[in-house]
Amino acid sequence: MEFFKTILIEEAVNIIKEEFKDYKLESEIVDLDDAYDKVLYEDVISKEFVPEFDRSTVDGYAIVAEDSYGSTDTIPTVLEIIGEVKMGDRTELVVSSGKCAYVPTGGMIPKGANAVIMIENTEKMDEKTLLVQKPVRIQENIIKRGEDIKENEVVIERGKKLNPAHIGALASLGISKVQVFKKPKVFIISTGDEIIGIEEKLEFGKIRDINSYSLKAQSKKIGLEVVGNIIVKDDFIQLKEAILDGLEKSDIVLLSGGSSVGERDYTKEAINSLGGKGVLAHGISIKPGKPTLIASAKGKLVIGLPGHPVSAMTVFMAVVEPFIEKLYSLNTIKPTIFAQMTENFPSSAGKDTYVFVNIKKEEGKYYATPKFGKSGMITNLSKADGYIVIKIHEEGVNKGEIREVYLL
Amino acid sequence: MEFFKTILIEEAVNIIKEEFKDYKLESEIVDLDDAYDKVLYEDVISKEFVPEFDRSTVDGYAIVAEDSYGSTDTIPTVLEIIGEVKMGDRTELVVSSGKCAYVPTGGMIPKGANAVIMIENTEKMDEKTLLVQKPVRIQENIIKRGEDIKENEVVIERGKKLNPAHIGALASLGISKVQVFKKPKVFIISTGDEIIGIEEKLEFGKIRDINSYSLKAQSKKIGLEVVGNIIVKDDFIQLKEAILDGLEKSDIVLLSGGSSVGERDYTKEAINSLGGKGVLAHGISIKPGKPTLIASAKGKLVIGLPGHPVSAMTVFMAVVEPFIEKLYSLNTIKPTIFAQMTENFPSSAGKDTYVFVNIKKEEGKYYATPKFGKSGMITNLSKADGYIVIKIHEEGVNKGEIREVYLL
Repeated sequence: MEFFKTILIEEAVNIIKEEFKDYKLESEIVDLDDAYDKVLYEDVISKEFVPEFDRSTVDGYAIVAEDSYGSTDTIPTVLEIIGEVKMGDRTELVVSSGKCAYVPTGGMIPKGANAVIMIENTEKMDEKTLLVQKPVRIQENIIKRGEDIKENEVVIERGKKLNPAHIGALASLGISKVQVFKKPKVFIISTGDEIIGIEEKLEFGKIRDINSYSLKAQSKKIGLEVVGNIIVKDDFIQLKEAILDGLEKSDIVLLSGGSSVGERDYTKEAINSLGGKGVLAHGISIKPGKPTLIASAKGKLVIGLPGHPVSAMTVFMAVVEPFIEKLYSLNTIKPTIFAQMTENFPSSAGKDTYVFVNIKKEEGKYYATPKFGKSGMITNLSKADGYIVIKIHEEGVNKGEIREVYLL
Repeated sequence: MEFFKTILIEEAVNIIKEEFKDYKLESEIVDLDDAYDKVLYEDVISKEFVPEFDRSTVDGYAIVAEDSYGSTDTIPTVLEIIGEVKMGDRTELVVSSGKCAYVPTGGMIPKGANAVIMIENTEKMDEKTLLVQKPVRIQENIIKRGEDIKENEVVIERGKKLNPAHIGALASLGISKVQVFKKPKVFIISTGDEIIGIEEKLEFGKIRDINSYSLKAQSKKIGLEVVGNIIVKDDFIQLKEAILDGLEKSDIVLLSGGSSVGERDYTKEAINSLGGKGVLAHGISIKPGKPTLIASAKGKLVIGLPGHPVSAMTVFMAVVEPFIEKLYSLNTIKPTIFAQMTENFPSSAGKDTYVFVNIKKEEGKYYATPKFGKSGMITNLSKADGYIVIKIHEEGVNKGEIREVYLL
């Protein structure tokens, strides 16, 4: 029997990042219509000024600002209306002191004008005569050419997960194709003589293959493409072949089960027999989830997750997720919630403890309640909303404390 | 010229909910593999007890708890080891006072035992002899049959958006097919003589079709299926035909542009000519976004959004999103962030004001800074992380105030 020398989560993540630092995701060009929720591979550079000319931000009259100084309701300034700018037209009008021209919101500011007075602050006496009833500052209600974006300016940065506003911005710049990250491919192996497919009849002593399903969903959630999965018996040859197959088809192989201390643990042996650096670390100070194996086989990442479904999910979140985020250069705000703990919760010494919680929102505040559940079963986890992490040096969380909650 | 009688956002949403209260989404049965991120149509009921028998939550020895009372390191209790429970096996062992049996985590508790003492608190003298060095309480380290889930208990509720833990829980119960909501179909129409496709050459006076793209992405984001989109000139016949086509293909028709006050506004006319209740409301007290039209044509929902891209997106979030959430009976925590405002921001009287913000996280706290941008251009919006809503009765937000931020 062999005992683990456990390492910290941060060390585990760093081992992976360091070992696979040359691993780069590929990119692909997609139509803007298919770009939503994908991650941008390169900074998008504008080829245009936005706006492309000085525009009015209100419906009103383009004037020489100085003309309006001192204007009031009772002592308005009288200006001559020289015309109207049509929306979307390039205007030839020229405004000078004593004159003005109507401009709709978004309309082009005529030459000579340096401000726009809102229509609400004027009174039109007749087709040719406007009363200005309020002063405006120079540049008021005008957006200058390029004020939003200049030519050659970065519009959206690499690593942004494209949301609807990004998609709209790209459309506005006439960008109909974008370069996005290709999804890395993952292959998932469930190991154990006792594991059966979920559609098979459950006999005593058998356990349904939960991990394939939860890990597939987790993989999709963080932007991996699942290229296959298989259940493998505790058999060295079968396991080795499954891993080889997975390495051929994918960039990352995830195993679950078979990484615990035990006689039937072929995982380590199988990985080490494949060529490459083999097992890099075994055992992480995390609860739930200690028996985790990090390896490099044929230059690719292989992670042996615990067989216990909640442990496997937890290690995935703690170790796989940050690595994938790094691959994607992700720089999008990840929605976490700061919530007040409603109860004390002790943690295990010497480990980062993942505590699953329920969230309630009350009067503009979030509250988090630890989900107790002796079993640590996934049915219990599925009723949680998120989790907090109690770090190794902490003794637990106290009622009333504010903690960051990651959503499931 | 006609002026709007504007209504509150809440009124607009209620008009839609009331008018389409009989509108129900269809459901479909999907494989568990395809269920991630879909919304559950019916409560999932367990057909099993979880766990299916009393199990140990630790590696240890099943004992009669009373035997351990008073045990210490120096005065241990001596028990006879009668055997070992194998993981996944139905054990025939019977434990009585003075006896014990080894049980791995998750293993079945033998008859007669009422507690499990952790292996760390014992010392095995030989194959037959165990020293118990600590007392355990009755039921300690045991999870009872059905403690997690009882037969016929609801495991996951209707309206839950299925996350990886839900998927795992369903797999654990042997549920390989789930009934989920079918996506409602949406058809998107951009109107205006000045609108051109984003791949066309931009001439002066033309505007790129931004809204089709941003609205398609928004639709995907909230779980709508986009079945088509088209750009239509300001022509009554063309517009009417496009709406008719949309109504035939989809459940919801979204128009943008053409709903502002103006001579070329055929939208209202076209909708009213189609049969059904026609326009139900015109104009919402929202900034940006006032010129919005809510209608029922041929029994289906038609929404006329403003032509301005940021306004169109805002009205979509304010009005369309809550209706779709209701259709889905959505009861999943929506990730919002409570953030401290870093600046004052005034709002417009008589309107709900949507203020786009940037989010920063510092020392366990979120900070929100309003994105000023005179233009209200979508390029500016695309640099925001989320938005806050200043309600109609508020005068703005103050620096230091904590506000709820919705992520983009």
